[in-house]
Amino acid sequence: MIELGANRYGKAAIRLVKIDRGPDRHTVRDLTVAIALEGDFASSYVDGDNSLVVATDTMKNTVYALAGEYLTGPIEAFGAVLVRHFLAVNQVEQATVSIEEHDWGRIGEAPDAFVRDRVSTRTAAVTGTGAGRIEIDAGIDDLTVMKTTKSAFGGFPRDEFTTLPDTDDRLLATRVSAVWRYTGTPDFDASHAAIRSTLLEVFAEHESQSVQHTIWVVGRAIVDRHPEVAEVTLTMPNLHHWLADLSPFGRPNDRSIFIATTQPHGLIEATVRRA
Amino acid sequence: MIELGANRYGKAAIRLVKIDRGPDRHTVRDLTVAIALEGDFASSYVDGDNSLVVATDTMKNTVYALAGEYLTGPIEAFGAVLVRHFLAVNQVEQATVSIEEHDWGRIGEAPDAFVRDRVSTRTAAVTGTGAGRIEIDAGIDDLTVMKTTKSAFGGFPRDEFTTLPDTDDRLLATRVSAVWRYTGTPDFDASHAAIRSTLLEVFAEHESQSVQHTIWVVGRAIVDRHPEVAEVTLTMPNLHHWLADLSPFGRPNDRSIFIATTQPHGLIEATVRRA
Amino acid sequence: MIELGANRYGKAAIRLVKIDRGPDRHTVRDLTVAIALEGDFASSYVDGDNSLVVATDTMKNTVYALAGEYLTGPIEAFGAVLVRHFLAVNQVEQATVSIEEHDWGRIGEAPDAFVRDRVSTRTAAVTGTGAGRIEIDAGIDDLTVMKTTKSAFGGFPRDEFTTLPDTDDRLLATRVSAVWRYTGTPDFDASHAAIRSTLLEVFAEHESQSVQHTIWVVGRAIVDRHPEVAEVTLTMPNLHHWLADLSPFGRPNDRSIFIATTQPHGLIEATVRRA
Amino acid sequence: MIELGANRYGKAAIRLVKIDRGPDRHTVRDLTVAIALEGDFASSYVDGDNSLVVATDTMKNTVYALAGEYLTGPIEAFGAVLVRHFLAVNQVEQATVSIEEHDWGRIGEAPDAFVRDRVSTRTAAVTGTGAGRIEIDAGIDDLTVMKTTKSAFGGFPRDEFTTLPDTDDRLLATRVSAVWRYTGTPDFDASHAAIRSTLLEVFAEHESQSVQHTIWVVGRAIVDRHPEVAEVTLTMPNLHHWLADLSPFGRPNDRSIFIATTQPHGLIEATVRRA
Repeated sequence: MIELGANRYGKAAIRLVKIDRGPDRHTVRDLTVAIALEGDFASSYVDGDNSLVVATDTMKNTVYALAGEYLTGPIEAFGAVLVRHFLAVNQVEQATVSIEEHDWGRIGEAPDAFVRDRVSTRTAAVTGTGAGRIEIDAGIDDLTVMKTTKSAFGGFPRDEFTTLPDTDDRLLATRVSAVWRYTGTPDFDASHAAIRSTLLEVFAEHESQSVQHTIWVVGRAIVDRHPEVAEVTLTMPNLHHWLADLSPFGRPNDRSIFIATTQPHGLIEATVRRA
Repeated sequence: MIELGANRYGKAAIRLVKIDRGPDRHTVRDLTVAIALEGDFASSYVDGDNSLVVATDTMKNTVYALAGEYLTGPIEAFGAVLVRHFLAVNQVEQATVSIEEHDWGRIGEAPDAFVRDRVSTRTAAVTGTGAGRIEIDAGIDDLTVMKTTKSAFGGFPRDEFTTLPDTDDRLLATRVSAVWRYTGTPDFDASHAAIRSTLLEVFAEHESQSVQHTIWVVGRAIVDRHPEVAEVTLTMPNLHHWLADLSPFGRPNDRSIFIATTQPHGLIEATVRRA
Repeated sequence: MIELGANRYGKAAIRLVKIDRGPDRHTVRDLTVAIALEGDFASSYVDGDNSLVVATDTMKNTVYALAGEYLTGPIEAFGAVLVRHFLAVNQVEQATVSIEEHDWGRIGEAPDAFVRDRVSTRTAAVTGTGAGRIEIDAGIDDLTVMKTTKSAFGGFPRDEFTTLPDTDDRLLATRVSAVWRYTGTPDFDASHAAIRSTLLEVFAEHESQSVQHTIWVVGRAIVDRHPEVAEVTLTMPNLHHWLADLSPFGRPNDRSIFIATTQPHGLIEATVRRA
Repeated sequence: MIELGANRYGKAAIRLVKIDRGPDRHTVRDLTVAIALEGDFASSYVDGDNSLVVATDTMKNTVYALAGEYLTGPIEAFGAVLVRHFLAVNQVEQATVSIEEHDWGRIGEAPDAFVRDRVSTRTAAVTGTGAGRIEIDAGIDDLTVMKTTKSAFGGFPRDEFTTLPDTDDRLLATRVSAVWRYTGTPDFDASHAAIRSTLLEVFAEHESQSVQHTIWVVGRAIVDRHPEVAEVTLTMPNLHHWLADLSPFGRPNDRSIFIATTQPHGLIEATVRRA
């Protein structure tokens, strides 16, 4: 006997730009949207019967059609509108809308000209179930940060394959990915900005004993300072910077000249949550 | 109260090439390895205490050091050696080794020259727990395939946002990602080759009513024909090819000239398993 | 005084798939096309006057519209049709059509199912001038090859910054990009296949003293064996594979275990031509 | 007779980070460096004789070794130091050093913590010849900008393959690449900042009749306002944003909801120079 297990389907990489043409100045919203539905779609798989299948092309159309009326606030709210729309389809038991927002800054004081700001990407994932429960995750992707002091890594066990020396002063660089879950519905824009600030500020200030330690200190601060956050998951690849060995050239290198690398990289991920 | 939740750490993107210099000819193995450990590492996060932390640099060294003796057969076996190595560390409760193998074909009959074959990537993920249980997943990534007939999509519901017409003859293209779980320890190379053949053959032969239907038919055949497979998860983005509208130019286009696109794409994923 | 200098414009990344539905079996052509025009377009820049500007959208339409009738042979021929089409526009003095062809292999004996073969990409660039001269370049991109013996690098000068030891047996890997210019109009498919074979065969067989030497030996063979080739330009990044130092672990490593890297890489480019 | 034509070789993707540890605060320099040499290297190709070949590994070492003393000002100056170093090698007739600088902003007022700012990349290419001439190009890469008004495209010729309607109000987005050549040696940091400001300001303010027109207006302003610039080459892909057709859904779309695309794209490039 062979059966269908977990399954989901949807549309990804829906690229939407919305211009709001206010009387004094324009604003730009630039989103990449993905939609995934789960529910009783077994007949589409097993019988090739599409009578219950919302076409993914229809999903795409829906995003564009509803953006005019409903993409007026934070992406979390637009995601929730889309989730409710798809939950209204009978056989849908769970709908997930994931949105990335790409920032555009204004060029000077221009009312109608913008420059793409790629410091980081704001993300949201709204998940709704047929039972009426909606969960809202928000996050940050591709936020690359570096500490030039206050980063150590020592005291780790040494076995036959260990060659890394202990250090009390290394360069720490990582590309942060953070996802947190809200309890309730805060002011999404204000919360996101505040949590981002906490993340950056604590990353800068703390004394890191390891990437693991950094994740804990940053994650704990996010949960501690932002009561609207139930938990946060932080992923931090360790983007190694190796001190260049200039001794063959008779030149000193007192933690100044580094070789930046991407392969291989450490990869550390953890969730910090309210107990 | 704030606490540490799920966490894992390890090393990713370890790039290893091994040359076996046989008397008559050489062979090349080209792997990308990732290692992830879970267990009682809370003190490294919460206290910044690294006394239990296997350095990810040590993980990297271990992969290179053990490859000479142990990378002599399929990647599943090498992965299992690494998993057992890291499980022997006291506080490790789960170790996962993920390996991608990149194919190199021989140039003609040359004993010592090779060409990179990028038709697809073979993958394996070996997971072991402190309780002694080891699970072995194998798979294929980046296998891009196309059907030029025997692909329909019709009979789906039409709402106010539906514009896609029904079709009984569309071009279907997808980049397959497949992961299957073995029961027991088959001949990994033979099984992988046979499952890959089944995947391609059934993809070619079946009459597709949708990508969902294709996933089911292909997945069912894999589980049905390969008793060593407990379940398979197939991910198939729908890489849309739109029939070019040549009517403004007074030219026919009987399913011949297509516009290939990547944004947006459908994304369908399901598991098929032995009940 | 400020003036307009060299300028060109066109359309890039035109993605075209053509299915030929023969009575017994289908064939797939999969192209990425780029078009660039040069000529007396100064008024479009300086005066914002578009009356001579072939819209790039029109270029795109032209590619799709002409593919039905004219994409029936090699990409070089289709490129030449497009070049002549755009040269017929009065103010165009030079038209360049660059085409990449992506290979699809047949799945078994299936008449209508295919698998994307990414070993390498075939390229062509056809350039025509108002004076009626047409030049045809063909090439190969992304052909990654490796030699596990017969590759040395020694005898290079040593200065205060040199640390690399001489070696008479290193692993040589590169991702070849080749572009050659035809004299006349050979059988493009046959020539391309034969030149590709020469490239691979000579790469495999020769004793390399350096990447520079390899470029010369391969390039010379291409020009020597293929009288239809006036010159060939070869670009070969040196994709370094460093022998892993396993001595700290008391393990031998007789040119077996390598660390594959991409950053930094050597980059060597040269043209070999008929004198 | 077969001979060697144009040739060059060097090292690319040298990733260097330098930390200056000032008493009050640190600064970060993050560069990707490439070096290419030309000259009488024929024997290395034709004879496999490396006695004149500066190893690319030595080039890499040289960059790291000299960064301590010489990477103290703008990348143009560091590039010139490297160019002069390699020109001192007898057989080198031309040396080109290309540098990308990646920006890091400070996290708040932290003396030792930074966030990667990816709005654009600063570039420099310094070329020196044995005759003692040094040319310095500077530039900007990956600067993505958008105009939401003051962008038209109309009055272009219509042939049988033209379907694009004229528009006097389209969304214009492009990812600017600019390279300009300096006459003499200005204050490189100040000039770069001022030219970047001119580029952004003029892009924002002007009334665009086409991308060609935009290139001219922006390029002319750069040459006109910055006497240290002899010429500037601007490359502007047209990143099309198509107005979503919401009429099937009975919804208006007054230049608000756009479909962002990347394939295909227009590609326009021109040089504007002092006559």
